[in-house]
Amino acid sequence: MQVNGQHYRSVWREGAIVRMIDQRLLPHEFRLLDCATVQATAEAIRVMAVRGAGAIGTAAGLAMAQAALVAPATATLAALEEAARVICATRPTAHDLFFAVDQVLAAARSAASGQAQQAAVAAADAFADGNAQAGEAIGLAGAPLIAHGSRVLTHCNAGWLAFADWGSALAPVYQAKRQGRQATVYTAETRPRSQGAKLTAWELQQEGVPYHVVSDTAVGSLFRRRLIDLVIVGADRIAANGDTANKIGTYTVALLAQHHGVPFYVAAPSSTFDSNTPHGEAIVIEERSEEEVHWVSGLTEAGTLGRVRITPAGAHAVNPAFDVTPAAFIRAFITEYGIIAPDAQALAALAAGRAVAGKREPPASHAGPRLPRARAD
Amino acid sequence: MQVNGQHYRSVWREGAIVRMIDQRLLPHEFRLLDCATVQATAEAIRVMAVRGAGAIGTAAGLAMAQAALVAPATATLAALEEAARVICATRPTAHDLFFAVDQVLAAARSAASGQAQQAAVAAADAFADGNAQAGEAIGLAGAPLIAHGSRVLTHCNAGWLAFADWGSALAPVYQAKRQGRQATVYTAETRPRSQGAKLTAWELQQEGVPYHVVSDTAVGSLFRRRLIDLVIVGADRIAANGDTANKIGTYTVALLAQHHGVPFYVAAPSSTFDSNTPHGEAIVIEERSEEEVHWVSGLTEAGTLGRVRITPAGAHAVNPAFDVTPAAFIRAFITEYGIIAPDAQALAALAAGRAVAGKREPPASHAGPRLPRARAD
Repeated sequence: MQVNGQHYRSVWREGAIVRMIDQRLLPHEFRLLDCATVQATAEAIRVMAVRGAGAIGTAAGLAMAQAALVAPATATLAALEEAARVICATRPTAHDLFFAVDQVLAAARSAASGQAQQAAVAAADAFADGNAQAGEAIGLAGAPLIAHGSRVLTHCNAGWLAFADWGSALAPVYQAKRQGRQATVYTAETRPRSQGAKLTAWELQQEGVPYHVVSDTAVGSLFRRRLIDLVIVGADRIAANGDTANKIGTYTVALLAQHHGVPFYVAAPSSTFDSNTPHGEAIVIEERSEEEVHWVSGLTEAGTLGRVRITPAGAHAVNPAFDVTPAAFIRAFITEYGIIAPDAQALAALAAGRAVAGKREPPASHAGPRLPRARAD
Repeated sequence: MQVNGQHYRSVWREGAIVRMIDQRLLPHEFRLLDCATVQATAEAIRVMAVRGAGAIGTAAGLAMAQAALVAPATATLAALEEAARVICATRPTAHDLFFAVDQVLAAARSAASGQAQQAAVAAADAFADGNAQAGEAIGLAGAPLIAHGSRVLTHCNAGWLAFADWGSALAPVYQAKRQGRQATVYTAETRPRSQGAKLTAWELQQEGVPYHVVSDTAVGSLFRRRLIDLVIVGADRIAANGDTANKIGTYTVALLAQHHGVPFYVAAPSSTFDSNTPHGEAIVIEERSEEEVHWVSGLTEAGTLGRVRITPAGAHAVNPAFDVTPAAFIRAFITEYGIIAPDAQALAALAAGRAVAGKREPPASHAGPRLPRARAD
């Protein structure tokens, strides 16, 4: 996508160097981070210089490619296995990370003698490209939902910074813009980490999409005043019945949309659909550090990055990281295979990677490839 | 209420000095602000060293007392009229402010010759005491709703800092505690000004009430996990049909409570009931400065007060200050006259200052006075 008029991915490979946009500094500073070693890339994942499932998976895969490229040709597999250990220790709950690492390892293991390095690098690059192409296809599938002047509400950041490119929730907005239909986006701040006010706002600004940041408290007022035409959010995990785990606060937005008769869409690649989770009740709510609630980081008046404490010393906070939106509140899923109704049969077909019966066909302009699924069954 | 084990009001008078807790520094620093002149007190209102309808009204009334006390006996009325002009220019939308000023002026004007000063001071003190007593009575009326171990959700700050003493939404929690029943309070941050994370958390901590701060995004998750037994919020204005304007985000909390079958109470003195506003649609939504969304203030790591910018430079935000909760979502109003159902007849009686037909009697422990209404009809 565009940054200062130039095309970027969120993370990419140049030889044995993994380069990425340092998301810790956004939206206040645009700086690239160069990771010359597997250890440096793993550290970048750990400290969240790169975040978002697709972008993390891409970085992890490319770190494996790094390992293959610098290892002696006779020790490629050993180097990949050691790299896998290092990378998998960074973010223990990041599914895409494990999947990308496994794909690269599997490719190297099944390669012909002497071809492990080449196979590993090709698999890593394929993961990155596949992630970018899935976002592009999601955008093309979802773009027809957006009329010129549509007012779209989104939550958190499910834009291209969270993927190799394009994103999920924001991809339809970007594709519609290229097709000549400009939406206006309301981006909810999404405390405690404020990704909506920071990352989504920055992305939209770079792409020239008009937007308004609102506090999470103001979302209900937008619905009541009929200022929202549709909602698009991303997803962390979609259960077999369509219940969807996503960033904390998504459930409230979905209830508001339901109450006000506004369509609520979840945009996600098929890899996010998890047929092993029967329904939302089976998803454990992760509790994150309460420090995220107590402190807010940003740009100080001196122009440096800093943070301020909101709560009194000794305060106790609770900080659930995501919540579950019931399938009944979801109008449809926007996937790289098209728009899918939230019914069990369609979701099972999608999770199995099959062409989905009854799916709406993508628009004619959809020239994107049919992509391999980004997670093993 | 208690601060470091000592009793305080949010604002009070010592001779011709108006003293107040400087709320701009909370929760990070507890400091008293002494206002020696009408101008100083007016400035304290303007810069929000004191905030909250009842506390603002109390400060305004006491500023009038200041004016009466320092004026020559022969010029009391002229001094009061000049002071009224200064005070009323501070916060143009603060109803309680105008009402308190008018009450003091009216008392001075109708006093016998030579008694204007004394009448003005008595009226100002009566406003302050009445505001504190209304909070105390609201607390006694609402306390029976709270069982030992009740989990109460509140929004923003409708505690004693917003009144002369006791508060509205939190007063039942404080009274229940004195009666031996300890609640746990979930206080939603309430961006953009974060009064829930700052002021409510600080109040509860000082009063020894266990509490958890949550991001506004986490409130839906609390309901879904059945962690909330009841909701109590304050109100800015209550229309004749029971529709209630309150801090932005209240509507969303009320919808969540409705959807999950959790009782939602609005605690407010009868002065907040406005029979001249027929319903919520008649309430204009005030849009405040977008700077409140862009910046978050708090305690820096250096231990000084500061602020950080969240959004990218050039970002646009919208910042509605309050929203309207429909009467259908409100289980009951907790007032100084008792608990009132949200029906038009009961509300009309309350707005007219009459004993309310069909109201639930306060508990036997209610020894508080029947108070004059805090706003003219």
